[in-house]
Amino acid sequence: MGLFRAKGVVYKPVENVNLGPDSDESYIKANVKAPRMAGFLAKIFAWFLESRIFGAFLLYILKRNNLIHKLVTNAELEESPVYVPLHPFEGRFTTFKFPPLLLSLFITAELNEKEVKHVNSDLSPSEQVQQAIGCLPLPSENIVNGLKPSSRRWTIMDYSKAYSSGEITPYKVAERLIAAIHESSGPPLDMAFFINYDAEDILRQAKESTLRYERGEPRSVLDGVPVAIKDEIDCSPYPTTGGTKWLHKFRPCKGDAFCILRLRSCGVVIIGKTNMHELGAGTSGINPHYGATRNPYDPGRISGGSSSGSAAVVAAGLCPVALGVDGGGSVRMPAALCGVVGFKPTFGRVPHSGVLPLNWTVGMVGVLAGTIEDAFIPKMYFPMLQSTNSVSDITLARYGETVDVTIPDIEAMRLAHYLTIGSECTAALSSYLEKLDIAESGWDVRVALSVYGAFSGEDYIKAQKLRNRQIQFHRNIFTKADVIVTPTVGVTAYPILNDALQTGELDYINGAALVRYQIAGNFLGLPAVTVPVGYDKKGLPIGLQFIGRPWSEPTLIHIAYAMQTLCISEYRKPQAFYDLLKKD
Amino acid sequence: MGLFRAKGVVYKPVENVNLGPDSDESYIKANVKAPRMAGFLAKIFAWFLESRIFGAFLLYILKRNNLIHKLVTNAELEESPVYVPLHPFEGRFTTFKFPPLLLSLFITAELNEKEVKHVNSDLSPSEQVQQAIGCLPLPSENIVNGLKPSSRRWTIMDYSKAYSSGEITPYKVAERLIAAIHESSGPPLDMAFFINYDAEDILRQAKESTLRYERGEPRSVLDGVPVAIKDEIDCSPYPTTGGTKWLHKFRPCKGDAFCILRLRSCGVVIIGKTNMHELGAGTSGINPHYGATRNPYDPGRISGGSSSGSAAVVAAGLCPVALGVDGGGSVRMPAALCGVVGFKPTFGRVPHSGVLPLNWTVGMVGVLAGTIEDAFIPKMYFPMLQSTNSVSDITLARYGETVDVTIPDIEAMRLAHYLTIGSECTAALSSYLEKLDIAESGWDVRVALSVYGAFSGEDYIKAQKLRNRQIQFHRNIFTKADVIVTPTVGVTAYPILNDALQTGELDYINGAALVRYQIAGNFLGLPAVTVPVGYDKKGLPIGLQFIGRPWSEPTLIHIAYAMQTLCISEYRKPQAFYDLLKKD
Repeated sequence: MGLFRAKGVVYKPVENVNLGPDSDESYIKANVKAPRMAGFLAKIFAWFLESRIFGAFLLYILKRNNLIHKLVTNAELEESPVYVPLHPFEGRFTTFKFPPLLLSLFITAELNEKEVKHVNSDLSPSEQVQQAIGCLPLPSENIVNGLKPSSRRWTIMDYSKAYSSGEITPYKVAERLIAAIHESSGPPLDMAFFINYDAEDILRQAKESTLRYERGEPRSVLDGVPVAIKDEIDCSPYPTTGGTKWLHKFRPCKGDAFCILRLRSCGVVIIGKTNMHELGAGTSGINPHYGATRNPYDPGRISGGSSSGSAAVVAAGLCPVALGVDGGGSVRMPAALCGVVGFKPTFGRVPHSGVLPLNWTVGMVGVLAGTIEDAFIPKMYFPMLQSTNSVSDITLARYGETVDVTIPDIEAMRLAHYLTIGSECTAALSSYLEKLDIAESGWDVRVALSVYGAFSGEDYIKAQKLRNRQIQFHRNIFTKADVIVTPTVGVTAYPILNDALQTGELDYINGAALVRYQIAGNFLGLPAVTVPVGYDKKGLPIGLQFIGRPWSEPTLIHIAYAMQTLCISEYRKPQAFYDLLKKD
Repeated sequence: MGLFRAKGVVYKPVENVNLGPDSDESYIKANVKAPRMAGFLAKIFAWFLESRIFGAFLLYILKRNNLIHKLVTNAELEESPVYVPLHPFEGRFTTFKFPPLLLSLFITAELNEKEVKHVNSDLSPSEQVQQAIGCLPLPSENIVNGLKPSSRRWTIMDYSKAYSSGEITPYKVAERLIAAIHESSGPPLDMAFFINYDAEDILRQAKESTLRYERGEPRSVLDGVPVAIKDEIDCSPYPTTGGTKWLHKFRPCKGDAFCILRLRSCGVVIIGKTNMHELGAGTSGINPHYGATRNPYDPGRISGGSSSGSAAVVAAGLCPVALGVDGGGSVRMPAALCGVVGFKPTFGRVPHSGVLPLNWTVGMVGVLAGTIEDAFIPKMYFPMLQSTNSVSDITLARYGETVDVTIPDIEAMRLAHYLTIGSECTAALSSYLEKLDIAESGWDVRVALSVYGAFSGEDYIKAQKLRNRQIQFHRNIFTKADVIVTPTVGVTAYPILNDALQTGELDYINGAALVRYQIAGNFLGLPAVTVPVGYDKKGLPIGLQFIGRPWSEPTLIHIAYAMQTLCISEYRKPQAFYDLLKKD
């Protein structure tokens, strides 16, 4: 027993940890020693891992090298495990009329504070959208963020106005869209945005929407607006592949997910199922079955993942909003790399019926959009931005009020989350894996599944003890600050190498850099949003992340909007871009 | 991957499962192929398991043979995992003023129904005890259950009356008690009731109690009453060994557990820390370090476990009540084998601060007592038994109203619980195991820890999916029945064989028979009570178990009391018995 047990860290009691800027808590760098592997090397590695004896040894060594034993499994800490990061809604606004898990996507909380407009939850989804729109700061003459339409992406309101004025019809937009998808899907671009799209289904929806506008009866501002859906969410008439070649054979899609039903009742045109990292088990968006989703800002580079297609299609102008799922930064990372907004709500806020159950305690449906306003119209958490009271006080225009904080043990939190999502993913798939010809999976996913399957029950529970500890740290920090501001990712979009295209890629160093700041949102159930704030020297987008208290979406939106406004002059069009509302 | 995956059961959706007596769900017998092992065989087995390579293979085969892969890990079921069996208190009585986890041991719910007396939670513990006593059916002249004191165990009220009348003092009782413990601990009896007891500490408490009675100021009816504590609960001045030779070295006892503090404020005399199965990792009560706790009805046989000493001391008349902890039947099994009452409350009812955290989602402090009344005085959930309305209707005197039900998959539930408690136990101990010389542990525990450590995160989470499924089954059954009645255990006390004394014993067949009916109480968080109802041909006690809805303790008590009354004529004194209140 003792032979195989590395010495664990002894964690101090929470109350003895200094969370201030003068803290002596040091940030451990992600100690990932695994070299990048792709192609033949990745195959060899997967074969070894899948062999019973070598595999066990190899996994043991991997876990040691990745500090899992030291920081998680054998660590000494007093906290009890917290398995599910459900937070009671008792924050600064008010309480929910319904328990959070029963909330529908478009039913917002009854927010009492003066600066937050209450959206009546008895209304239909489309009526609620209309009410939310009433809260938007209305720019004059299509100016958004000070930018004219010619130098920015089209927003939901742009579509709505163009349709209502008869300038263009949803049907015409759909035709252009299908041509654009077709062009982007083939050589030389090979953007690999979609796993499935059905031109006939798109045109049918667009035709119905066009007829509604002709009758003067659009369902909402979302009527006729193209929306793309990550292929992790059930949506007729498509199978839900989860980025695999096999999952839909075992688990046929039986109808629309709850969130899709709500979108449809607002009249959106669903344009297809976007590409994703296979099983959400990676962060690059390189999918060996459906192609590597390419970054619209530089098609030689990754889009990030796992909601790779959803981020890329918004960046490329194919739709103003798309849905993703964020289990470990999977909405926010590709959003940051593709220069769009990515929003992950508080855990439990969106019902998950009809979403692939790849995990149960860290994931949440999220939105990718060109602007903060658009990200939040489908969520309807829009505060009245004109207000001048307390919430307004915490805008980024008042940087002088920021406080530096230290969040201890973020590398331990990353590993604990990895143990958690990996174990849950294996448990979710175990009955399929038994029937599956593993050769149908990508090599990087085969490695991931081998690693996930090697986590013990002890590992999993220890990780939940760390979850409790981090919840306490963050609770303490949120007594001093309204939001935590971090870089969204630790690296900008890196190149897609040819050897990865067929096998997928194992790049734990870049992977760890990507997820480094993502974990609190998932593991602790906190809402978080990334906003594009500029570009690196290569012209690749950079995102800034805001993490809020549980259920504090209105505050988050407010701050993110302020940030977006500050970054007006920074918008650059990506290399791959389609203008669906252009004048003929 | 596929190579190592046995085919899993495909579970039907819950709504398609027939829970009636005509159900075609079949009861799988516990398919345990492991032969009993003790002595040298147990050592060899542990050595094999602890070796990295042979161990992995052996464990793989064991798990297959025990149906874990088929019924749990690879099973196909739609339910999401439920990690913690916390039930909202919204049953037939009323809601709690405090969230369940904040409830103190002696603060009962505010029970609204007419037949349930409300105990004022603003009162002190001793005042609450006094109020609860007011609810007891008062027998005339010390007749309890129709039995005169000479042919039954002394109850709390017997002690209280004897002290109040001056017939005997707590100090005199303590002197007799110490002599009795001394006699029972040595040859030829070697009952191994206690791990630690401190004569000086007992006499000190008894002296203080005696002075209180002399002043006419006893704290409650519990003042001076001897109470024994399982060595899994912190209690000064003793170390908390958990039945090991090492745990207290790493985790020193820093003071009284919450439940001990409450008992002390009622004036009880704590008589020591009772023997238990090492780490609660077995059901026989055979502890290689502190001796096999012997059954007072036949000292050649087991007491059951893991709260072995607490059950045995009550059976032997050393105290009317003792505390145990029930993580997998650990209170109810030894209670049934020793012919006493054992009660496990609803999950979350008793605060667990100061209780060894050997698991987090299945265990609960429980009470062992000679009578239902005594089991519930320290819990204060006593309904007014004289009432004649609805609750009275569901007494066992009206057997005609019983309905037969089928509870599906109880063998799968047993295995899922085993995975859960095993994984939690390893996680709880992992930081100690790393420093531990494993040779300090018993051989049966070494085997258990090896098996527990082999459970994967996937196993653990799959087990939680089954937990959800079983919660739904039981919820359905409780729409048809108020309590579920089962045999408490599937076997009466079996002999202690000599080869087990030094090494402990691996007897999975008897173990599975013992826990067969226990699991719902722990895995689903339901309250359950066992009542002695008779004796087998060898004169060994038989228990009947009642499992109730969450928070339905008053109903359970009521039914258990009715059952106890029905079994009046059945009481037989055990072979090892001490009469502490006898007249000189």
